Amino acid sequence: MPIAVARRLLPPGSIVGVSCNTPAHVHAAVRDGADYIGIGAVYGTQTKKLTEPLVGVRGIAAMLDGLGESPIKAVAIGGIKATNALRILHSAIAPNGRPLDGVAIVSDIVASREPAASATKLSRLIRAFQQEFATGIGIHSRATIVGSIAVEPALERVQSLFQEIKKSSPLVHQITNNVVATQSANITLAVGASPIMATAADEMEDLSRIPGALLVNIGTLVPDTKLGMLEAGYFANLNGKPIVLDPVGIGASTFRKSSVNGTCSSLRRNVQPIIKLCNVELLDRWQPSVIKGNAGELAAFAGSTEVKSKGVDSVGSGFSDPALFVQALARQERCIVVLTGKTDYVSDGHLVVCIENGHELLGQITGAGCMAGSLIATFCAAQASLTRGQSGSAAIEGQLVDRGMLYAAVGGLLTLEIAAEQAVPADGSAVGRGTFLSRLIDRVGFLTQDDITRLAKISIQVPGSPKESTRTGLRE
Amino acid sequence: MPIAVARRLLPPGSIVGVSCNTPAHVHAAVRDGADYIGIGAVYGTQTKKLTEPLVGVRGIAAMLDGLGESPIKAVAIGGIKATNALRILHSAIAPNGRPLDGVAIVSDIVASREPAASATKLSRLIRAFQQEFATGIGIHSRATIVGSIAVEPALERVQSLFQEIKKSSPLVHQITNNVVATQSANITLAVGASPIMATAADEMEDLSRIPGALLVNIGTLVPDTKLGMLEAGYFANLNGKPIVLDPVGIGASTFRKSSVNGTCSSLRRNVQPIIKLCNVELLDRWQPSVIKGNAGELAAFAGSTEVKSKGVDSVGSGFSDPALFVQALARQERCIVVLTGKTDYVSDGHLVVCIENGHELLGQITGAGCMAGSLIATFCAAQASLTRGQSGSAAIEGQLVDRGMLYAAVGGLLTLEIAAEQAVPADGSAVGRGTFLSRLIDRVGFLTQDDITRLAKISIQVPGSPKESTRTGLRE
Amino acid sequence: MPIAVARRLLPPGSIVGVSCNTPAHVHAAVRDGADYIGIGAVYGTQTKKLTEPLVGVRGIAAMLDGLGESPIKAVAIGGIKATNALRILHSAIAPNGRPLDGVAIVSDIVASREPAASATKLSRLIRAFQQEFATGIGIHSRATIVGSIAVEPALERVQSLFQEIKKSSPLVHQITNNVVATQSANITLAVGASPIMATAADEMEDLSRIPGALLVNIGTLVPDTKLGMLEAGYFANLNGKPIVLDPVGIGASTFRKSSVNGTCSSLRRNVQPIIKLCNVELLDRWQPSVIKGNAGELAAFAGSTEVKSKGVDSVGSGFSDPALFVQALARQERCIVVLTGKTDYVSDGHLVVCIENGHELLGQITGAGCMAGSLIATFCAAQASLTRGQSGSAAIEGQLVDRGMLYAAVGGLLTLEIAAEQAVPADGSAVGRGTFLSRLIDRVGFLTQDDITRLAKISIQVPGSPKESTRTGLRE
Repeated sequence: MPIAVARRLLPPGSIVGVSCNTPAHVHAAVRDGADYIGIGAVYGTQTKKLTEPLVGVRGIAAMLDGLGESPIKAVAIGGIKATNALRILHSAIAPNGRPLDGVAIVSDIVASREPAASATKLSRLIRAFQQEFATGIGIHSRATIVGSIAVEPALERVQSLFQEIKKSSPLVHQITNNVVATQSANITLAVGASPIMATAADEMEDLSRIPGALLVNIGTLVPDTKLGMLEAGYFANLNGKPIVLDPVGIGASTFRKSSVNGTCSSLRRNVQPIIKLCNVELLDRWQPSVIKGNAGELAAFAGSTEVKSKGVDSVGSGFSDPALFVQALARQERCIVVLTGKTDYVSDGHLVVCIENGHELLGQITGAGCMAGSLIATFCAAQASLTRGQSGSAAIEGQLVDRGMLYAAVGGLLTLEIAAEQAVPADGSAVGRGTFLSRLIDRVGFLTQDDITRLAKISIQVPGSPKESTRTGLRE
Repeated sequence: MPIAVARRLLPPGSIVGVSCNTPAHVHAAVRDGADYIGIGAVYGTQTKKLTEPLVGVRGIAAMLDGLGESPIKAVAIGGIKATNALRILHSAIAPNGRPLDGVAIVSDIVASREPAASATKLSRLIRAFQQEFATGIGIHSRATIVGSIAVEPALERVQSLFQEIKKSSPLVHQITNNVVATQSANITLAVGASPIMATAADEMEDLSRIPGALLVNIGTLVPDTKLGMLEAGYFANLNGKPIVLDPVGIGASTFRKSSVNGTCSSLRRNVQPIIKLCNVELLDRWQPSVIKGNAGELAAFAGSTEVKSKGVDSVGSGFSDPALFVQALARQERCIVVLTGKTDYVSDGHLVVCIENGHELLGQITGAGCMAGSLIATFCAAQASLTRGQSGSAAIEGQLVDRGMLYAAVGGLLTLEIAAEQAVPADGSAVGRGTFLSRLIDRVGFLTQDDITRLAKISIQVPGSPKESTRTGLRE
Repeated sequence: MPIAVARRLLPPGSIVGVSCNTPAHVHAAVRDGADYIGIGAVYGTQTKKLTEPLVGVRGIAAMLDGLGESPIKAVAIGGIKATNALRILHSAIAPNGRPLDGVAIVSDIVASREPAASATKLSRLIRAFQQEFATGIGIHSRATIVGSIAVEPALERVQSLFQEIKKSSPLVHQITNNVVATQSANITLAVGASPIMATAADEMEDLSRIPGALLVNIGTLVPDTKLGMLEAGYFANLNGKPIVLDPVGIGASTFRKSSVNGTCSSLRRNVQPIIKLCNVELLDRWQPSVIKGNAGELAAFAGSTEVKSKGVDSVGSGFSDPALFVQALARQERCIVVLTGKTDYVSDGHLVVCIENGHELLGQITGAGCMAGSLIATFCAAQASLTRGQSGSAAIEGQLVDRGMLYAAVGGLLTLEIAAEQAVPADGSAVGRGTFLSRLIDRVGFLTQDDITRLAKISIQVPGSPKESTRTGLRE
C-alpha cells in the first residue's frame, strides 16, 4: 500500500513505516514521506525462505546513506539478537556518519524465558553503543578524534604495548594457513606471547573466553576452517577480543573473495570510487579490528582494479595514492587498515602512519606477511589488556574496535621489520633465504623496546592535510 | 523383578544375575545377594536407541569397584567382539585390582559364519589376558612388579632401545598437529627412524600392519582427524603397536577434553582425590601405552583443579607432589604417564623416574613437547621390536601395555633434552629461538648412546618408599 | 543379437557396431567381423546405475589393444564431453600405438543451446589431437621423436628454463602434504617463482586460469584434499597447465593406491611384465605431465613387486634395470617419469637421463623428494611459458603433455641436488640435519645457471640402444 493511501486511511499523526530491501526502496520512502524505514532482512532464517535477497550486515550502511539529511528514522530488522546487535550497530553507519536509530528485535525477547531481562540487556547494549558513538574513542565514534601526528608519542604507545606483551604474555589464537603455522607460532613465542593454533569450530566459544586476540588468515582457506573462522570471530566480538583479518590471496579466487567479501554490489558515495561496498560472509558475522594485506590483496578486497595480484603476490607498483586508499578503506570498514609493501601504510581512518623499515629478504621467504599478522595480533592483545586495565567494562561495552589498535598494528610491523634489518649481518655478507628465517626469529626474541625507538623509521600524516611528521631512526 | 522374588520363584541353587548400569545398581546387587552382575551396555549400537546411558569402556572399572570383596562375579556386555575384548579387559580393572570375570558376547559368535572358530578365538584371547594378568609383566598385571630403582640398569635399557632404533629404523606413524608436523618428522628421522604423518581414517588399518608405533597428538584436533585417530588407535591395539597419546592443550576447550576424556563422572576410591574417572571418546576406543603432557594438560586430563592451563601452556608452579600424581594416574590409566616440565616425571604406576636434563629454550619454541612425543613413540617402537624378538607371540597376546615402555619414555625424553643441552654453545654465547631448533635437530642426529649415559641426570623412586636412587650425569 | 544374425537381416553394406565393455567383448567382435566397436561406458552418470562396470579412461587402451592390426574402427562412449575428450584421446592409445578413431558424444551436442557451435568445438579439438598425434611433438604423438643423447644440448635446454623462471616468476600451484608445505613454498620462492598452496576444490577453476604449473603430492592425502586434487588437475588439463604428480607413500595403503591408481586389472602386452595397467581415480580425471617417485612408490604405482616400500620410504636396492623401468612406465603413462634415488632416472618414453648429483643428507631430512617435486613443477611452468611463446595455440591445442617437460624434470632435480652439494661445507666439516635444510634453501637461492652447467653429472641413453652419452660435471 502506497504511503499516501495509508495516510488517507489513518488518523492524522499516525506513524507510517516502510520496509526497505534495496536503495531504491529507501529513495521511494524519502520521496513519499515515510516516518521511518525498516531495513532488512539483515540475516536469513533456516526455517523459511525469504522472498527478497538479504541485505546483510554490510548492506545496511548503503541504505542508510540513501536517507541523506532527512529526519526519517531507520531501524534494522531480521535475525537480530543481543549477540549480534553490536556488530550490526557498529557496521551500519552511513558514509555520512549517520547511524541506525534502533534495531527491531522479536524472538530474542518474545521467545525468551525472561523477557524483561532480555529487553534490559539489549537496551543496555544499544545505549552503550549510542553513548560510545556520540562521545567515545572507538573507531566508529562520531566524536572524530584525529590523533597526534607527532611521532614520539606514537612510539611511546608502541613501547607500552611491547612492555605489556612481555609482562602478561597474552594468548594469541591463530587460525592461519598451514604453510606458515610453525613460524607464526614461533614468532609469537619469540616476542613473548603464547600462541594457540586451533581451528575446530567446536572449540571456538571456549577459546574466546581466554583474554588475548584472534588472528584469521585465509591463506589456505577450506570450508571446514571457514566454519572455525566464522565461529571464532563471532565469539571474539562477543567477548571483546580484537581480531586481525589477513585476507591472504583474496584476489586469487572467487571462493576466497566471496568467503570474506561477497559480491560487490554497489558504490558508496563519499568514498574514493576505488572502494566498493561488498556483501560479505566472514565480515557479515564479525567485525575485525585490523585488516592487513599487500596492495593486490587490499585492492581485491576493496573491489579496486588499480592493483592486480598473482596468486598471493601483488603485481606492479601499487596504488597511486596509498595513504588516501588506506584512510578511505579504514573509514569504510571502521577498523584499522594495514597496507604492507616497501613502505607500509597504517590508518585508523584519519591518521596514516608510514613505516619505512624492513628488508627485501622478507619478500623472498614464505609467510613474512603472515608473521606480520601474528605480531600485529599479539600487539592487539596487549592493547586490549591495557584497555581492560584502564577503563571500566561499561565504557567499552559499546565499542567493537579500539582506536588504539592503530599503534598495535604499527608495533607489530616495527617488530618484524626492525628484527629483519638486524637479522642481516652488519658486515654486508650475504644471507640466504633459508637461514634468514631462523635469524629473523632469533632477532625478534632479542629485540628490545630501545631497538624499536632507536631504529623506527616512521612518519605520520593526515591525507588531505598539509602537516606531516617524519622521524627516521638512525643507526649508530 | 527383585532378586528376593526371583529366588522364591526359582528352584534352590539357581543362578541369579542382575544388569547394572550405574554404581547404585551394583550396590543394590551386592546388598540383595546377586550371583553375578552384567555391566553394560559398554558400547552402543547404530540400530537401536538404548534407554540407559552407555557405561563405556572406562565406566566398567568404577562399577567393579562397587563389588568390593564380595564373591559376586561380573561380566561386561554390549557390543563386545574379538576386536575390542582385550581393550575392555585391560581397562576394566577396579582400583582394588579386581578384573572382570568374563565378557558376554552374542553376535560375534551367533552371527559368525564359523561360530566354533569365533568362540575359540575369543576364548584364547580371554585366557591369554587372564594368564598375563595373573603372572605377566604387562602394566595391568596383578603380579605387581616394582622394577629396580637402580639407575644404571635403567640407562642400559635406554641404550639397548637406542641401538634398536639405529638398527631397525622403525616406522613411527604420527597423527599430530599441523604446527609441528615438519619438525616431528625431522626429529624422528634424526634419531634414525622412519616417520609417516598420515591422518586419513581410510588408511589406518593398512598402516597399522606395519610394525612400529603410533603417536596421537591433539594439538590441532578437528573432527576429520579425530576419525583418523579413533581408527588408528583401534587398529594399533589390534596389532599390538604401542600408542603414545599427547593431549596437547586438552584444558583449552571442552571439545578437546571430551574428545579424549569425556565428562568426569565419578571419583575412584583408592587413588588421590585429584584424579577422577572420566568417560572418554578416544580412550573408549583404544588403550595408549604412554600418556604425556605438561602439568596443565595432565591436570585437565585427570580432572584435577590443582594446576591451570592457558591455551597449550601450563600456568603456575605445578603439582604439589608430582611424583605421587604420575604414579596414581599411571595406575588408573594402566599405562606409562609422563609429566614434562623443568623436572620430568615418568611412571609405570610403581616406579617414578625423574629427569633433570633439558634447557629453557625448549620452552621458548613451539612444539618441543610434541617432539618429545615423537621421540617417545620412536623408543616405544624399538621396545615393541625387542619384545617381538624376545618372546613368543602367545606370551604377549594378552598384553596391551608393556611395562618396558617406561624406559622408552625415559629414552625419548633424554634424547631430546640432552641434545638440547648440546645445542647451546659451550662458550655460553647466546642462541636465538630460531636457530636453536635447527641446532637441536642437528644434535639429535649426532647423539650417541655414550652421550646419553654420560649426561643423563635421572633419579628413580617409589613414592611412599624411603629408598631413592639418584645419578647425575657429569659434564667433562 | 549376434553379428552374423544382424548381417543376415540387414541389407548388404550395412555397418554393424558392437558395444564392448571388456577385452573379451573386443575379442569376440574381431572374431565375428564387426565394422566398429563402441568402448564404454568410460564415465558413469549420476542419474542411472550402469549394469556393466565402467571401463574408465585408463581401461580403453587395453581394449584397443585387443583390436590388433584389424581394420575395425573404435570409438569411446559414455559421459564424454568437450571438457574431457582430450584427456580420453590422449590416454586411449593402445600399447601398439593405435589411437581411438573417434568419440561418441550425445548430450554435449544434443542438450546444448547451440548444437552447431558445440559440435564445431568438439570437431576442432579432435582434429587438433589427430594432427598432433600424427605429426606433433607431444609425448603421445605417433611421430616417435627420439631426442638427442648429447648432453650439452640437454643442459642448454635446462639453462633456458632456468632463465625463464627468473624472468617470468611463474605461479606454481601446489597441493602438497602439510609436513612439507613450508619448505616447498620456500624452495619455490628461492628459485625465483611464486608458490600458492591452495587446496579447496571451490577455487581450483579460478586458480587454473593463472598460467604456471600444478603440483599434486599425496603425502598426507585426505578425502577433502583429494576433491581439490581432482578439480585442480581437471581444470589444469583444460587450460593446458602441466601437472606434476608425486604419489608419496602410495605403497603404504590401499587408500592411497586406489585414490591414484585403482585396482590393477590387466597386463599390457608389449611393456615389461612388471608394469600393469591400472584403473585410476585421480588419473581417470586428469593427465599428469610428470610422475615422480622413489623406487618403492613407482613400483607400487605400477603394480610391480620388484621393490617394496615401508611407509614413505623405499626398501632395498631398487629395480634391477631402472632405466628400462622408467622408459616403459613413461610409454605406458604417456608422460615424463622420474625415478629418484642415489641415481635419478628421467624418461620421456624414449630417452633416459641419469643424474648422479645430490648428497646423502637429502635422504635424512623430511620432504627432500617433495621439494624435488616443487622444483620440477617450477621448471614445467617455465617450459609451458616458453611453449606458449614459441607456437600458436592451435599447434598445442591437441597436446596434453609436452615432451620438453623431460628437460624441466631434469632441471628441477639438478637444481635441488647441486644446491645440496653446495650446502655442505667444502672443508668437509659435519653439517647437521637441522641446519642442512636452511643451507639448502640458501643455496637454491644463490644458484646460477653456470653452477648447473659446471656441476651437472648427467648421462643420456636410449635403453636397448648401444649409444650412451655421459658427462660428468667437474668441480674446480
